[in-house]
Amino acid sequence: MGVSQLQPWQLLESTSVFQALPWIQVFRHTLQLPDGRKVDDYHSIDLGIHVCICAFTQEGRILMLRHYRHGCGGVCLGLPAGAIHPGEPPLQAAQRELLEETGYAAPSWTLLGCFREHGNYGCGDAHLFRADGAVPVGEPDSGDLEEMELELMTASEVAQALRAGQIPLLGTVAALALAQVDITG
Amino acid sequence: MGVSQLQPWQLLESTSVFQALPWIQVFRHTLQLPDGRKVDDYHSIDLGIHVCICAFTQEGRILMLRHYRHGCGGVCLGLPAGAIHPGEPPLQAAQRELLEETGYAAPSWTLLGCFREHGNYGCGDAHLFRADGAVPVGEPDSGDLEEMELELMTASEVAQALRAGQIPLLGTVAALALAQVDITG
Repeated sequence: MGVSQLQPWQLLESTSVFQALPWIQVFRHTLQLPDGRKVDDYHSIDLGIHVCICAFTQEGRILMLRHYRHGCGGVCLGLPAGAIHPGEPPLQAAQRELLEETGYAAPSWTLLGCFREHGNYGCGDAHLFRADGAVPVGEPDSGDLEEMELELMTASEVAQALRAGQIPLLGTVAALALAQVDITG
Repeated sequence: MGVSQLQPWQLLESTSVFQALPWIQVFRHTLQLPDGRKVDDYHSIDLGIHVCICAFTQEGRILMLRHYRHGCGGVCLGLPAGAIHPGEPPLQAAQRELLEETGYAAPSWTLLGCFREHGNYGCGDAHLFRADGAVPVGEPDSGDLEEMELELMTASEVAQALRAGQIPLLGTVAALALAQVDITG
């Protein structure tokens, strides 16, 4: 693939232009491009860091949540997910969110990767995890505004729900695929 | 799976609280939850609609771009992608972006699905496409601020780059997986 000659942009100035803390902060960036041009109205959006977990039961079923997501405008299916608390290690956040949202715990965890939401504006990072051998250890108690229903689905049921448009989030699709669920099956 | 009893939230009021048009608009929503509670500081972020294309050459190589993405904070690999123009059908936008960014055109197109960026705030939609039989028909001319280099990669090279952290965007991961590239190979 050879050696790339591409250069990063230089950040000259960053100004906070909108805040709805602790959830949202928008910055206006002044940037210098590699060819010397300046751009003074590029934005960066900070929506924090979150985790998303593809957990399998001992029987190989996938823990999916059915819930209203305001960003999706309706009731839909998604993987357990949530914000990482300040200073909390991502794995600990993933284990906490799985327990809070489903009542399940798992002995075996794998980091699938950390990915950015938006190529232009950032919009936060998603740490994607796989958990194996999940078993129920208590009642869910998410503390979230959303009511949610846990569904233990086969890979084939997940693929069918995806085709039917019931799984609308990029993060869930990416985590399922990286956890080797055959989402096109 | 039974019949879900989950209800959507009701949008009572929407106020535009930040604009960087035509790219970004943030709204503050007043919402009523199914249990009657009101929430008056939930936000919705509109970053528009875009396309992302997983295109294969006649030899089965995947058209990847190496470019600086400000949202990712560095030079990285991603699929061709871009904003849908006002009134433009998504397929036409995908064909235009592939041509502009790579100089390739393809005879066979499949819509892989339309997905939301963020479960809480929305952040726009990504229409993901697969294109087959792509052939070079001209020189790339994206008009974007970013310089970019086209790389024709095998699925195995894509999987290796992903493991090495060179493919940082959720949308690219989801589109590759839905186009049946073995990203864990």
